[in-house]
Amino acid sequence: MNTNQFQVIKDARIDAPKGFYATGVHCGIKRKRKDLGMITCTVPAQAAAVYTTNAFRAAPLKVTEESMEKEGILQAVLVNSGNANACTGKKGLADAYQMRADMATQLRVPDHYVGVCSTGIIGESLPMDRIQSGIHELGLQHKQKTKNEDFAEAILTTDTLVKKVQVELSIDDQHIKISGVAKGSGMINPNMATMLGFITSDIKIESVVLQSLLWKATEETFNMITVDGDSSTNDTVIAMASGLANNTSLTPQHKDWHLFVDAFTYVCRELAKKIARDGEGASRLIVATVRNAHSLLMARQISKAIISSNLVKTAIFGADANWGRIMCAIGYGDKNVVPDRVEIKIGDIPLVKEGQPLPFIKKQVAHLLTQETIPIDVDLHLGKEQATAWGCDLTYEYIKINANYRT
Amino acid sequence: MNTNQFQVIKDARIDAPKGFYATGVHCGIKRKRKDLGMITCTVPAQAAAVYTTNAFRAAPLKVTEESMEKEGILQAVLVNSGNANACTGKKGLADAYQMRADMATQLRVPDHYVGVCSTGIIGESLPMDRIQSGIHELGLQHKQKTKNEDFAEAILTTDTLVKKVQVELSIDDQHIKISGVAKGSGMINPNMATMLGFITSDIKIESVVLQSLLWKATEETFNMITVDGDSSTNDTVIAMASGLANNTSLTPQHKDWHLFVDAFTYVCRELAKKIARDGEGASRLIVATVRNAHSLLMARQISKAIISSNLVKTAIFGADANWGRIMCAIGYGDKNVVPDRVEIKIGDIPLVKEGQPLPFIKKQVAHLLTQETIPIDVDLHLGKEQATAWGCDLTYEYIKINANYRT
Repeated sequence: MNTNQFQVIKDARIDAPKGFYATGVHCGIKRKRKDLGMITCTVPAQAAAVYTTNAFRAAPLKVTEESMEKEGILQAVLVNSGNANACTGKKGLADAYQMRADMATQLRVPDHYVGVCSTGIIGESLPMDRIQSGIHELGLQHKQKTKNEDFAEAILTTDTLVKKVQVELSIDDQHIKISGVAKGSGMINPNMATMLGFITSDIKIESVVLQSLLWKATEETFNMITVDGDSSTNDTVIAMASGLANNTSLTPQHKDWHLFVDAFTYVCRELAKKIARDGEGASRLIVATVRNAHSLLMARQISKAIISSNLVKTAIFGADANWGRIMCAIGYGDKNVVPDRVEIKIGDIPLVKEGQPLPFIKKQVAHLLTQETIPIDVDLHLGKEQATAWGCDLTYEYIKINANYRT
Repeated sequence: MNTNQFQVIKDARIDAPKGFYATGVHCGIKRKRKDLGMITCTVPAQAAAVYTTNAFRAAPLKVTEESMEKEGILQAVLVNSGNANACTGKKGLADAYQMRADMATQLRVPDHYVGVCSTGIIGESLPMDRIQSGIHELGLQHKQKTKNEDFAEAILTTDTLVKKVQVELSIDDQHIKISGVAKGSGMINPNMATMLGFITSDIKIESVVLQSLLWKATEETFNMITVDGDSSTNDTVIAMASGLANNTSLTPQHKDWHLFVDAFTYVCRELAKKIARDGEGASRLIVATVRNAHSLLMARQISKAIISSNLVKTAIFGADANWGRIMCAIGYGDKNVVPDRVEIKIGDIPLVKEGQPLPFIKKQVAHLLTQETIPIDVDLHLGKEQATAWGCDLTYEYIKINANYRT
């Protein structure tokens, strides 16, 4: 393995890094599909977490945050799908604590070594009897070391695909694995777009270092995707590092720090892209890159304005090279844009230069717009900062999924 | 007429206030429909204007702003539809100046007494020969005092309806009229949602006073509507006051100041609502009112978050009382919301109290949700401020209109 690079592993498994075990079961929150999963570690893992900025944080987020605050360590994460345990008041909070306690008992670890996540319907209490028997089953599987790959499946809601990424790299001559699993913005009846992400690694790293890395990576990846602009009550990303790879503890001073950061960020970015591509009703991934902005904030705001614009999203659905709608989004994305300098390309085809339309070969663009991935490239010619955001098109199917449900 | 009230006039005419004349013609920018209109005043009118916050301001906005900056006076506004004269570079700016000069010549007024507005396709140069012959025709009609009501029609793009409002009131025993016309967020191929608004009155008021009033009213009305969240390059609202009603010049110290403010704001609000209701593909008007917020900003942010949410908009289209999506929008609308205090009603039916769902009579709500107007009422129980925002549902028709065009 080239020590300056990381390798992408085709068959990703969240339990691939040393020390991790993961599984999933059907406990009966959903009718048929798996709905309860856990990731555990043979040792207390250094952990980090980021949560939704929505003012209505669901109960499990509060419980996980409490766990994390004690020592920055997690040894297990328990996740249910089908019910978000959000807007459920005191009972919801008690239920989240109960889930944590039951899982801790099964694994014989302190309560605060367990994190809990929920995703699904909001405003309904969890069916605690089913969840408790599910946790019991997870405990049994854990004892028997039953191997399966059901965790990635057990956390899904209306996602159409399992989302997994794994990379490997070498640090201090040690073989390091980083693996990630996510669920995306599938709408759950009667609610709501939630994204969950879980990253495991056998890297040796302190919780506080991992936390700063996770924040930075989230800024560039999970926070740069949009399906419909709505941030949910349950969004959570958790990272756990077992330390079993036995490298010298990783810090920003370590010679391979940047390699690890790149690899870790790659995992986050690929998960984020999979979430965007699998947005409700989406038929295409939109990748908007804004170059040469005054600031990183400016680049991020404008790239997010582009992928969030319903007008751009419908134009892409209609395979229409509608540069005017992109211009419009750029213009309200940041007030300091200088119109006469703006360049827009779709793929390699220039559509706008110095703020004015260019003649373009319609057939070529039309062909580009039928592809799976639509790259929109904006050059502001102002500064040196750059950002990329990922989104999806807005389709009849989106309306169908979101309008045809009755609460 | 009750002096403490204003009367709403059924057959609104933008030329009803003393001194005004308005007309419209077909000059050939569009294939068949009227596409060039003007409002003139027999005397130089005290004027005020607000413009889009989009960084890409179209050429006509720059020219109108220049006119206004000189004396705060306008004697005519010339508006074309079918072409926005945006992203058209130096030629576009020269064309906008030319339109202004030609109109001024026809009316024998100084150039800077004329404002110009354009709405329609962006990135294409105006067909100046057609526009110039159209201006000539407008000049002829003006000389002959040909009365018609074509101005409101001439400014439309994909709007399905003409939008007009008129009120009358008495100030200093003088009969005062305020009339307004607007065009809304119809998408124009290949672009873009533009709103234009024009308000005329025979009130005597100084430009600077009218300007501050227009800003305040715009904040509460035009800035509180959303069709798809995209602010355009051409959005403009212009107010003109002829002063011919001969009241004592209106200032905030005048005993009837608040009456006039209410009447003026009413005109803006009704135009704004008409724009929201006639949003592309819209089948319903959504009215989101947020009460008892800490601040006006908080109330405005949250009410706008609700009407801007694709999830809320699709739920309303699906006649679904999806309180969870409303909660979600409240939660990301402002971080200082206290979840346990939130109350949500649709019409008079309470759906959420203290942040948790209530049992509600599904049939009753379902009936409410088939109405033309859907009132969403949120009480934050935090402070005393209140705001209302207006939007529309998100429908298959919206996707159809915006995806089926080829640039």
